[in-house]
Formats: sequence, C-alpha cells, structure tokens
Amino acid sequence: MSERPFTLPFDPTGIVLDRRQGLSRQLYQALRVRVLDGRLGSGSRLPASRDMAAALSLSRNSVVRAYDQLYAEGYIESRVGDGTYVSQLPKLSTKVSTGLSLGFSTGLSTKTAINTEDSSSKVIHSGPLGRLENHHLPPPKSGSPRAFRVGLPAFDLFPFDVWAKLQAGFWRNPDPAALGYGDPAGEPQLRELIATYLRRSRGLSCTAEQIVITSGAQQAISLCAQLLLEPGEVVAVENPGYRAAGNAFALTGAKVQGVAVDHEGLDCAALNAVEHCRLSYVTPSHQYPTGVTMSLARRLQLLAWAERKDGWIIEDDYDGEYRYSGDPLAPLAALDRSGRVLYVGTFGKIAFPALRLGYLVLPRQLVQAFSRCRALAVRHSEVGTQAVMAQFMARGHFQRHIRRMRKAALSRRNTLMAGWPEGISGIRPLPHVAAGLHVTVRVDSLALERVLIEQAESVDVEINGLSDFWLPDSDASEDERAGLVLGFAAVPEAAIKAAVQRLAEVWGLSRN
Amino acid sequence: MSERPFTLPFDPTGIVLDRRQGLSRQLYQALRVRVLDGRLGSGSRLPASRDMAAALSLSRNSVVRAYDQLYAEGYIESRVGDGTYVSQLPKLSTKVSTGLSLGFSTGLSTKTAINTEDSSSKVIHSGPLGRLENHHLPPPKSGSPRAFRVGLPAFDLFPFDVWAKLQAGFWRNPDPAALGYGDPAGEPQLRELIATYLRRSRGLSCTAEQIVITSGAQQAISLCAQLLLEPGEVVAVENPGYRAAGNAFALTGAKVQGVAVDHEGLDCAALNAVEHCRLSYVTPSHQYPTGVTMSLARRLQLLAWAERKDGWIIEDDYDGEYRYSGDPLAPLAALDRSGRVLYVGTFGKIAFPALRLGYLVLPRQLVQAFSRCRALAVRHSEVGTQAVMAQFMARGHFQRHIRRMRKAALSRRNTLMAGWPEGISGIRPLPHVAAGLHVTVRVDSLALERVLIEQAESVDVEINGLSDFWLPDSDASEDERAGLVLGFAAVPEAAIKAAVQRLAEVWGLSRN
Repeated sequence: MSERPFTLPFDPTGIVLDRRQGLSRQLYQALRVRVLDGRLGSGSRLPASRDMAAALSLSRNSVVRAYDQLYAEGYIESRVGDGTYVSQLPKLSTKVSTGLSLGFSTGLSTKTAINTEDSSSKVIHSGPLGRLENHHLPPPKSGSPRAFRVGLPAFDLFPFDVWAKLQAGFWRNPDPAALGYGDPAGEPQLRELIATYLRRSRGLSCTAEQIVITSGAQQAISLCAQLLLEPGEVVAVENPGYRAAGNAFALTGAKVQGVAVDHEGLDCAALNAVEHCRLSYVTPSHQYPTGVTMSLARRLQLLAWAERKDGWIIEDDYDGEYRYSGDPLAPLAALDRSGRVLYVGTFGKIAFPALRLGYLVLPRQLVQAFSRCRALAVRHSEVGTQAVMAQFMARGHFQRHIRRMRKAALSRRNTLMAGWPEGISGIRPLPHVAAGLHVTVRVDSLALERVLIEQAESVDVEINGLSDFWLPDSDASEDERAGLVLGFAAVPEAAIKAAVQRLAEVWGLSRN
Repeated sequence: MSERPFTLPFDPTGIVLDRRQGLSRQLYQALRVRVLDGRLGSGSRLPASRDMAAALSLSRNSVVRAYDQLYAEGYIESRVGDGTYVSQLPKLSTKVSTGLSLGFSTGLSTKTAINTEDSSSKVIHSGPLGRLENHHLPPPKSGSPRAFRVGLPAFDLFPFDVWAKLQAGFWRNPDPAALGYGDPAGEPQLRELIATYLRRSRGLSCTAEQIVITSGAQQAISLCAQLLLEPGEVVAVENPGYRAAGNAFALTGAKVQGVAVDHEGLDCAALNAVEHCRLSYVTPSHQYPTGVTMSLARRLQLLAWAERKDGWIIEDDYDGEYRYSGDPLAPLAALDRSGRVLYVGTFGKIAFPALRLGYLVLPRQLVQAFSRCRALAVRHSEVGTQAVMAQFMARGHFQRHIRRMRKAALSRRNTLMAGWPEGISGIRPLPHVAAGLHVTVRVDSLALERVLIEQAESVDVEINGLSDFWLPDSDASEDERAGLVLGFAAVPEAAIKAAVQRLAEVWGLSRN
C-alpha cells in the first residue's frame, strides 16, 4: 500500500489544470482526450481515485466525479475488487474529436480546433444544398429603419405599450393547457378573429376552420412549396416578382418559370403557354414590386386557368390593407368558388415584420394537409404571440391600428410625392401610388440604376434596384429591368422630406 | 330628366338591404353578384347614383361608395358624358364565386355556400399531399397536463412572473432595429449564450456562429429533411423511435428505414447494411422512447459510418439535460471532429413546449445553407421570444431553472417508482430510470397494451402505447412492440401518487 505513489499505472504529470475553473470537468476532459487519442490504451489501468487526487493535488471528490462521468459515458470500466480500466473501444478514427478544442484549460479560444480543413473545404453543389446555392438572395436590410427601405410599415406608430401590457397579462398567469403542444393550425380564438376580420373588412368569405396560422407570409409560401410541388414540376411566378417566393419554390426542386407582368397584372396568355404547370404565385392587389393591380378580366382568366389545369393559385396579399381611395380591393380568393386559391395574409405589414405572424386561408380540401405539414415543420407558432394578437384584435386595437397605419402611410406617400425630384435625366415620372407601401420608378438603363442607388447610399438613402426583382433568365433586356423601388412608410415625414432633398442634391448635381 | 325614375336601366327592386349593416358594402355585394352571375350583363347600364339612391332609399353617398369600389375592382366603367356600365369581362365560368356566400345580407351564416361539393370531395393521393396522408400521426395530447403525458417537463415550476416582467420590459421600448427583418440564424446574443451554455454545461465545443435558432426541435429536424434529403434517398431512423422525425423525412419523398435499437442503442451493424443511406437520425443521450443510452462503442461506430458514407448524423438531444446521477452525458457531437453531426437542442423540455424555441449546432460547412433555408422557410423566429430568452439566460434564470427542473423531475420519478404497481400479470418490471422525462415498460402483448391503456384512461390516467412508436413495416412482431410509455414530469407528486393508486386499483382488479 505504501509504495502505491511509485507504481501509478498511468502517469498524470502531463495533466495541467487551471485552478480557476471546474477541476473535475478538466480532469474528465484530460483523461477523455487520452483515451481517444490512444495515449491511454484500451485496458490501461487508472490510478485509484485517492492516488490520482494526491498526484494532482486535487480533492478526492473531484477525481471521483471525473471518474463517474467517464464511467457513465463508457470511457472506463471498473472490475470488482481490482480497479479502474480504460474500456475496450472500437479502433478509433484519427478524426474523432479529442476534445482538445473544448478550451477547458484556457477557458477562452474555441475557434481554432473545431473544424478540420478537409471538412470546411468540402464543396456542396448537388441536391437541395446545391439548389439553395443557386437560389439565395442577400438578406433583407437590417438595422434601424431608414428612408426608403422596402417592406417596413410605419411601426414607429405601433402601440407597444398596449402590446407590453397584453404580453405581461398573458404570461403572469397562463393557462397550463396552453403551454404544451398546441393546435398546428393555430390558436382557435385567433383563427376565429382573423376569419371575422376577413369577412367584414376584406370581403373574403371564410371560416376559422379554413385558416392556418403561419410564421409570417414566408412560411405560408414555404408550406405551399412543400405540399404542392414535386421536383421537376413547374411553378409560374410573376417576373419581376417576389424572389423569396421563387426561391422557396426552387428549393423543392421545382422549375420556377417567370411570367411577364403588364399594366393589368400577370400576362395570362403567357401563363397559358407554360407547359406542365399547375401552380402559380401572384400578388393581385398590388403586384410586387411594380405596384400594378390585377384587372378583373385577368383575375377571371387566372381562375379559369386553374380550373382547366386542375391547379392552384397562391394569392399573396402582403399589403392589401393599404389602399388610399375607398376600401381595400376584394382579394382574388373572394372570386374563387372552386377551391383553387390559397390566400396568404400577414400581420407583418400592419404590426411589424419581426412578429413573424401570418396566415393562410385555404380551400377546405387542403386544410388538413396544411395543418399536418405545419405540425411536421414547426409543430405550431409560439403561444404568447398568438394569444396576445388575439387579445389585440378582440379589444379593437387591431382595427384602430389599421386605420392609423393607412393614414400614416398615405401621409408618408404624399411627402415622398411632394418632394420627389422630378425631371432628373433618365428617371421616368413617378407613377401615381394608389395602394401599398412602396413605389417603383423605371429608369432608362441598368447602369443608371446602379449609379443612382450608389449615389443615394452615399447620402444615407436606401433604394432597391428593380433589376434585383427579375429572375436570372428573363426575356426582358438588362435595361428594361432597370428601376428604383422605394418603400415610403418606414420612417416619419420629416425623415422622408430630408431624404428626398438629399436625393435631389446628389442626383441633380451629378445628372443635370 | 323627370321621367328617369321610370326608365331605370336596371331594376334594383330585388336588392334587399339589411339596415343594421354597412349599406354601401351590401349594395356593392349585390351588384357584384349580379355582374358575376350574368343578371347584369356586360355593357348593361347602371342607374345614376342619385336614382339608385332614391330607388333603394339610401343616401347617395352610400351608392357612390359602392360604385367606387365596383369601379376600383373593375366590375363597372364610366363613359364620359354618358353613364356607368358593366365592364366587358371574359366569359365567366359558372364556378366563379358570386359572393352569395359572403352572408352580407344576413351577417350570419357563411358556412353553407363556401365550398362546392365537387371540390371538397376531390381526392388527393399523390406527391407530397399523398405522402402526408400516409405519414401523419394523431397530434400530441393537448389540454391541461395530467399523469402520465409524455413530452412535458414540470412547467408548473416555470417562473412565469420573471418571464412576464422580461416580456413587458422588452416590449415597452423595443429597439426599432429589432422589429424589421432579423438574422435568419437567430438573434446574435441568444446564439452566443447558447454556445456558452453548451460549452460549459454540456461539454460541447461550439461557437455562436455554428448555432441556428429554430422553432423548436421539430423545425430543426424539418430543415435537416429539406436540406439533406432528395426524393428516393434513404434515411435511417431508430425503430422504435420518434415518429414525427420519420414523418418529416418521409414528406420530402425520402425512404425512411427503421434500424433496431438494443441495450446499447442503435444497432450499427444493421445500419451498415442499409444501402444508399447517408443520413441517420438518433437520440443517443436517452433513446426515444426506450430510454437506452447509446454506448461509447456505438457512438464511435456511428461516427465511423458517417465518415465512410460521407454522410450526416442528426443527434436529437431532446432531454439530455435530465440526468439523475452526475452531470449530463457529453453529446455525440462532442466526439465529432469531421463535421458529421448536426446537434438538435430545445428549450421546450426546460421551459415548456409551446415556447417553440430550439436550436441546431451545425458543422461549419452547413451553417450558411441552413441559415438560408430557414430564411426561405420562416425568415426567422419571433423577436420577443428570442430576446426574452437571452435575458433569461444572461441573468442566470436559465441555469437556476435547469437545476430546479432536474430536481423536480427526479422527485416525480421517485414518486412514480415508489407507487408503481409491481407484479401485475403481463407487465414487465419497471426499469431503472437514470435520465429523461419518461420511462418505458414492456408488456407481454399488444392486446394487453391496449387493455391497460384503456383501463388507465377510464380512471383519467394517460398512457402512450409503445406500439405507436414503431414504423409500420417493422421486423418485430406485434407483441414484441408492446409496452407502456409514461411521462413522469408533467404533474406534481401528489397527482402522480393518486394516479398510480388508481392504476393499481383498475389494473389490479381486472388482472389479478
């Protein structure tokens, strides 16, 4: 017994422990590394815990804890009446992580050792990963809103105090029944309120049973892609159009076919000519990004197309609430009697995008499938957001806020139109803006588009190029694709006024 | 002029308006119906607004508003100096919605007229819709937690007061930069805190850049399915196992191949025999639902398989925080040095499932693709939940709550084990439960499983059948698949004690 320190079956002197950190965890790591890299071979005997403790000046407790963890994870085993040995393990690949990367000894850097060069340099170019490589876009602009960011409503006017109170009210005493797994189609009360809103304010006949809550319009589109498309099938999209929808379709392996848009909306003659296509994606209220409203004739032709093809139409009504004369237009779905239209709505353009709350209004025969698909995709949406939005609607805040937002967007539109620098060479006249949160102005050439955007950026004004909204293989020439897309609702009037003044200066100086 | 009332170009007498509702909206609807069903043919002239107002005893304003909406939507057009006419429209399908279903005249029922019989009876059985038909499960049980619901932690102990305060604090004055479109990979602060937690508490070396926030574990699995599988490819899953994962894989058109589980976890020899398979899904910490911990030897074999196949392993560590002796086991991902393991973590089993917050820890070469895929799927998670969880972690509530939950689950496990009715004929002994939130007990036959579950339900005790966790085409016989799966954490000790007493009575009475 007395000679034990001199016959330690394993020499622990290489183990250096940082006294400021958890010691048993470090010892566990150090021994684990040695088992995995072979320094402690299968069958090696480990010192008894008291000897290891003495050798490393540790408490015996720390050693026991480290041994326990190694034992629980299968690195070591004990033989009754004998001692502790390294387990018999399969021949190890040299690539198995030795845990050296864990940084326990320094507690700091973990970056260097995590990845091996051969894995990070692996090139992925087939299948869904490859398709994604070919169908991604720069992410939407982030940071504080500024003129003229696209896609943002006037959320500086959102009643955050009301929202905060409703959130606190929900969470202080939530119903336990709401905290487990919920209905994948969404909270029943919220669906009921949305259906009522759509019937009363949008002329869209529907019931709560047809509504599936989504994480914003994007998830609605993504679910459509997953459920209605197979690899190799064709989906028709507006061109120019909402590229994030096209990319969601492309990810499934479907072929995305652009269809031209004219002053009446989607060119239905061109759509009819697309072969093997049974799904189309449109923005009839306010085409994204051109701003055209689809004519009634085209709506009827589009519905006839879907019936003839036994197909589906996705109607993305992303900003249909914003109409500056009279009521919002009735959606295409309100004309659909044969269950062909999947209507996409969102709270992102009334409240704010980061809420990630939207919905689908589905033909009855698709409701169950979408609900099941959503269960497999995300189970359901976070419960608090749904419950609080239901309260927000039930107490009348939502309808009040829509009116407030419409008025604000109108005023901001007017500010943009009043201050817009007309007559700059190469920029066509600003069109009348009857709806929505953005306006598209054509310019004479792609080169000019790029220069104007760059100059705008130089005076802290954000403008999107219309050319970015076209599919890569469009028929239109480069210069036909050129234009400026300006969101006018993101910032208050004063900031808009200042921004158009800066634009007038930077564009005027350089162009005239 | 004086004879106008007698020469109304269109007889409005059939139009009945409900005086309690918006009149212009009703008139708009009534006229729209007549245009669409042909009673008001293309080119028909409408009465001047003042005549229409007189004929229907409406204010002229109401008529003008209705006409404006019909005009905006393209149903009517005006000819200068002449009057108002119904537009020339494409020949209408008889199936176009006449809007009769809108229920504006009664303001009540909308159900009857929404759907035509031919569309609702349409049968869908091919493509993703068909696959979904074949790969869905009954949804998880909902309603208030009761013994022995699976998948629920002791969320009666969650500090909802803290959560409510943090929510209110976030929403009272949110940073405008956080309310637009955020990072699809998740809020940077939350990712940083998760990485720190995994390094310190789970021995998983990773950095914030490798983390992608998800809507719970299910979205993590669904993203893996969308990105790593093509139709026709094979994915290996544990059998019995987590069926919602298998179904998410099947939805992509991949073939789901069950691989047996023994006392060491997934049978790697059987896995090696699966052809054309480069993706496997496993629950190594605590196999779902059998509760087996994967041995170190199997872990190393599994990693070697992935390297040999140039494939991927999805590690679902759904309840890895719950270990009742010593620290939680290091995850499989901690052994992975060649970037083969995609680690799935969730807050659903520490906080509560309806939070829908989870994460992936990804090999570096996959991070960008998953982030892009998530952008196409949902953009990102709701901002408040992410920000509040970050605060919850940063202020130490999370670590405290894990300790509280582990202690509670242990106590509830002990209550179940102490009260469990041993010796009921056909029920094997309750195994030792070293980890997780549920226990699986084998029974002798499928028939017995069904009877026991039915009897339990009759005394308000919820038990899942092990047979439901098997793939339909399993090798195991019906009786080999039989068992009881009990979640022991969902309700407090007193309720568990009462439930096992009721079980002892109802099972004892009928079996012994």
